[in-house]
Amino acid sequence: MSDQAKASSSSKLFLRALAGETLATPPIWLMRQAGRYLLEYRETRKQAGGFLDLCYTPKLAVEVTLQPIRRYGFDAAIMFSDILVIPDGLGQKVWFEEGVGPLLEPVTDLEALKKLDRSRVLGHLAPVMETLKGLKASLPSETALIGFAGAPWTVATYMVGGKGSPDQGAAKAWAYRDPDGFQVLIDLLVDVTGDYLEAQVAAGAEVLQLFDTWAGSLPARQFRRFCLEPVKRLRARLKKSCPDIPVIAFPKGAGAGYETYFRETGVDAVSFDTSVDPVWAADRLQPLGAVQGNLDPLLLVAGGSEMDRAIDHLLETLGSGPFIFNLGHGIVPQTPPEHVGQLVDRVRGKK
Amino acid sequence: MSDQAKASSSSKLFLRALAGETLATPPIWLMRQAGRYLLEYRETRKQAGGFLDLCYTPKLAVEVTLQPIRRYGFDAAIMFSDILVIPDGLGQKVWFEEGVGPLLEPVTDLEALKKLDRSRVLGHLAPVMETLKGLKASLPSETALIGFAGAPWTVATYMVGGKGSPDQGAAKAWAYRDPDGFQVLIDLLVDVTGDYLEAQVAAGAEVLQLFDTWAGSLPARQFRRFCLEPVKRLRARLKKSCPDIPVIAFPKGAGAGYETYFRETGVDAVSFDTSVDPVWAADRLQPLGAVQGNLDPLLLVAGGSEMDRAIDHLLETLGSGPFIFNLGHGIVPQTPPEHVGQLVDRVRGKK
Repeated sequence: MSDQAKASSSSKLFLRALAGETLATPPIWLMRQAGRYLLEYRETRKQAGGFLDLCYTPKLAVEVTLQPIRRYGFDAAIMFSDILVIPDGLGQKVWFEEGVGPLLEPVTDLEALKKLDRSRVLGHLAPVMETLKGLKASLPSETALIGFAGAPWTVATYMVGGKGSPDQGAAKAWAYRDPDGFQVLIDLLVDVTGDYLEAQVAAGAEVLQLFDTWAGSLPARQFRRFCLEPVKRLRARLKKSCPDIPVIAFPKGAGAGYETYFRETGVDAVSFDTSVDPVWAADRLQPLGAVQGNLDPLLLVAGGSEMDRAIDHLLETLGSGPFIFNLGHGIVPQTPPEHVGQLVDRVRGKK
Repeated sequence: MSDQAKASSSSKLFLRALAGETLATPPIWLMRQAGRYLLEYRETRKQAGGFLDLCYTPKLAVEVTLQPIRRYGFDAAIMFSDILVIPDGLGQKVWFEEGVGPLLEPVTDLEALKKLDRSRVLGHLAPVMETLKGLKASLPSETALIGFAGAPWTVATYMVGGKGSPDQGAAKAWAYRDPDGFQVLIDLLVDVTGDYLEAQVAAGAEVLQLFDTWAGSLPARQFRRFCLEPVKRLRARLKKSCPDIPVIAFPKGAGAGYETYFRETGVDAVSFDTSVDPVWAADRLQPLGAVQGNLDPLLLVAGGSEMDRAIDHLLETLGSGPFIFNLGHGIVPQTPPEHVGQLVDRVRGKK
């Protein structure tokens, strides 16, 4: 039986859409669906010390992953973790400050890079695999399990910058002054991310998503070299080692570049951000595979008729091809949980 | 003589490119070319109290506008001002804090909107017209004079949010909950921006640029209503009142939407950001008119062979149509002034 035939016979809508099937009701999940907008998340969060402790305590990570599944019956659960566990696993100092976000001891040259250790990553990230095993055992049979990692370019921006930044200036400075040195960091990330994603599949992940939040910041040539090519290499490796596992990529902000990226990386689906016109996505992206997106998270905060209209427009525009309903970016903390319920009902034709 | 024939016979390269002419050497100017990367700017800046005082003191504003022309001989000078002079002119409280950026007393509902007064704007902004007249009298004959304003959507994000924000959340909240109320603000901005730009032309501006920094944050439907349509209306008004004056728009982050925007607004040129592939711009945008862009400002900071390669790629890719060399966003304070000199020389074939 071919992969597509296997997926099409699956009871999991999410896997069927990823295999290219057009469904009467598209599957739905939301980026950052386990998060601060949920009271029960905030309660569980208190039981962990730091944010990384929550990621590394399988019992708690399983619990917060399941919370939105219990509430809304999403078609997919995404393991609770963070894209910065990779630098943490490599031995770079990473910590989260309340109200500030992630901070890292910056890695800005080859000397600092030498201190990172690929061999310790999988041992350090063993708790993530425990989380996946726990989820595998507890998820409803119709719910798909998503593993994920940050894409190399985006993880590199944090590793080099030591924090989030509006212009990714530090990583660009290295990439522009010394592209071959910066390539060493990217290559390390391709390798270690491959190790990590393969381990996730071994632990039960059925789908993998690569988050490339800062894909939109690079000019064309560097976009190709440091953003598209690494994902293409990762995709090729996973195609060999885990041929049945679909890969979704989210090159946020790639604009017209989404099309080239989708075509050339060989991923099974792209997640597209709020700025992309769904009509354009139906025309240029959906012929290449499944697409996932792109309700504005702030329309979900606002609710009401503007949200309903946007939901309906997405369903009409993308419903005649393989489509996964999602947001254009992560759900935000101020989202009223009842709006999420209304969204799910509307997508499933219940109101 | 037609507009195009008039512009083509002009000695100003910048006007010839805007009229659709392909030039052996494209004109060049840089967004924010009068700014903190220049020692002489920092010196002049000290003579003004607040940042708005600098904008409203014609002698100083003329001086800082001329500084980069003296140093580099750019093909165009852009009057020194800020997009927030419009809310300031309307009577909204606006101030700039060192290291923080602009702050405004937020306008978040129709009640607050009623307190704004379109009739005081041109009086309040009379110093800007003095600046333009001063520039007209002092610019070299080959240098074009650019006036500008913020586009309605982008100015609205600041007026509603009270400051810059990564997600334009406050303006979106209003636009999504009460689109017809928010439209009143947009309509006011279309009117007052039209008044302001016409006054700039009367004072000597030869080209107008509309800055729409946050064009990339809206979903398709709201992008059309609050971003594209207002610019289209402004363009139509100016076409009647100032038929000889070309308009450039910069809908930053519009992605594949640049094409629709260019086609439908009727502007003469679009400025495109760093994330846009120049090959795509040559293919999809340049057939519609002149294009302006898009060297990464951080490549200009880095300099060296990566910068040179990017410059050459832009010249090769866009040189066979109407093209204005510029950055993908404003020049940043840490730019070494000698890199700007190298850029200008390279574009002009001098090294």
